[in-house]
Amino acid sequence: MTLNFTMPTLKEIQEAHNRISPFIHRTPVLTNSSLNELSGAELYFKCDNFQKAGSFKIRGATNTVLQLTQDELDRSVATSSSGNHGAALSMAVTNRGGKTKVVMPNNTSKIKVNNVERNGGKIIWCEPEQASRDTVLKALLDKTGAVLVHPYNDERIVTGQGTAAKELLEDYPELDVIVSPVSGGGLLGGTLCSAKEMNPDIKVYGAEPAEADDAYRSLQSGKIESNETINTICDGLRAQIGTVTFPIIKEKVDGIITVTEVDIIDSMRIIWERMKIIVEPSSSITLAAVLKDKEVFTGKKVGLILSGGNVDLDHLPW
Amino acid sequence: MTLNFTMPTLKEIQEAHNRISPFIHRTPVLTNSSLNELSGAELYFKCDNFQKAGSFKIRGATNTVLQLTQDELDRSVATSSSGNHGAALSMAVTNRGGKTKVVMPNNTSKIKVNNVERNGGKIIWCEPEQASRDTVLKALLDKTGAVLVHPYNDERIVTGQGTAAKELLEDYPELDVIVSPVSGGGLLGGTLCSAKEMNPDIKVYGAEPAEADDAYRSLQSGKIESNETINTICDGLRAQIGTVTFPIIKEKVDGIITVTEVDIIDSMRIIWERMKIIVEPSSSITLAAVLKDKEVFTGKKVGLILSGGNVDLDHLPW
Repeated sequence: MTLNFTMPTLKEIQEAHNRISPFIHRTPVLTNSSLNELSGAELYFKCDNFQKAGSFKIRGATNTVLQLTQDELDRSVATSSSGNHGAALSMAVTNRGGKTKVVMPNNTSKIKVNNVERNGGKIIWCEPEQASRDTVLKALLDKTGAVLVHPYNDERIVTGQGTAAKELLEDYPELDVIVSPVSGGGLLGGTLCSAKEMNPDIKVYGAEPAEADDAYRSLQSGKIESNETINTICDGLRAQIGTVTFPIIKEKVDGIITVTEVDIIDSMRIIWERMKIIVEPSSSITLAAVLKDKEVFTGKKVGLILSGGNVDLDHLPW
Repeated sequence: MTLNFTMPTLKEIQEAHNRISPFIHRTPVLTNSSLNELSGAELYFKCDNFQKAGSFKIRGATNTVLQLTQDELDRSVATSSSGNHGAALSMAVTNRGGKTKVVMPNNTSKIKVNNVERNGGKIIWCEPEQASRDTVLKALLDKTGAVLVHPYNDERIVTGQGTAAKELLEDYPELDVIVSPVSGGGLLGGTLCSAKEMNPDIKVYGAEPAEADDAYRSLQSGKIESNETINTICDGLRAQIGTVTFPIIKEKVDGIITVTEVDIIDSMRIIWERMKIIVEPSSSITLAAVLKDKEVFTGKKVGLILSGGNVDLDHLPW
């Protein structure tokens, strides 16, 4: 595989941070003594579930949209998204006065549908599988001439997502490890670029559902593998690792930890009950990974990126 | 009615704060732009749902338990509680090496039962009605000689609960209004004592379920009225205003706002969805009050005390 771009540098992530700061929250980092006890580690939760539009996605989306030309914006903006990127992109585009079309799986939870619409996006439905997402999106782009802002396979997106770990390490520079969810690889890729340049000794792990473990298998085989099934509750973690993101992950990551559905749901409930905050399963997977591979984390200072909080309260998994 | 105690002064609340600080969190104050828009006011949420043992109750319980003599502690400590005071008292007593017995209604949610037991308390069951609570508690005290730490009708408790509003006003001295839930009156009484001395111009309102509106009716009649029914989802707001707390409320409160069950549940869901935090219905009632009586709050800086976050996730009200 050849890299047709340079990996985001900390300087570029800093520039992105300056660019997007007026439009995002600097989210808090929470700690919880009972979860420290449970895990045997010191946990620092980076709460992007409190972020604008309910997830970290606003970071990359804003970084990208602010770099579109007026001509590009006038053509309208399109994407494919399980929900959080669609809502974030809609917010970023609406802020600039443009229009957004979001290709979205027809099994998307109502809260994520509402979140796109409330932020001014128009939804085009597709089937949940990656192939359908791609086909419907391509037809839309061909028909409308809209500008694609991909949810993760875009250097501007990766650079923007890297600001979450940058904030976390500015607040807690002494962290030994960071755990990020991994789906398409935008958040994990950005996290790797900022964290490893800020502290070359830090370990960074991806947490991935065993039911959609393409990143894990891709790392094993050395090339991008597809998901054969995406039967996971983590609706934000069903996408396939990208050509832009995989080379970053392959070069820099310390490992991908796969987690069962039961452990993801248990960890979600633990966070809700003990921390009194609402996180998606796609976020709680980071705690599930820490509780699973205790030997990696025991006694360490561990940053966990809680990526989002958009949960359908009518369909909780317990 | 004659007062057989002096109302807590700000100096006493400060002393209580010094006493309990090592054992409680100084909880954050959150804001949310979409809820500001919805309410037409500037809202400042004092997040005691993030407090130790999951509610503000640890403030008054700790303040009281730290003032017990060793002899009193050795006799063991007892109380009657819908759950949050029981858990908080158990934590405070266990911290001092003592034993706690909690008389608890047999319809208490599992999370509150677990919360008492996890903190070392032993549960004695009663019926939900106030009469049963009183009878079972009296029998327990007669039989065991345990020291009663009442959930609200005790000046030490009221003084401790006043530290929540004190922290809120230290962080945001410019608030125009504070809204506190009201049940037995410990939190509202303490809030009134600290807030009105810190800022004599501030308005303080109680928020109460229409289905258990004894405080509202007591204020109307000028004497303590009983609840005929307590058919409210707010399991923390079913107690009856006390002889210690009512005189404070009668003298100082600017009004009690009663709220329907539907509005309480709606406001709980709004807080969960928009703020991504978990609050009990007994907390969300403050937002429901602000959304109901808009003419009181429009354009004002309003502090809302979110009293607790202990919710049974298996039995959500929507």
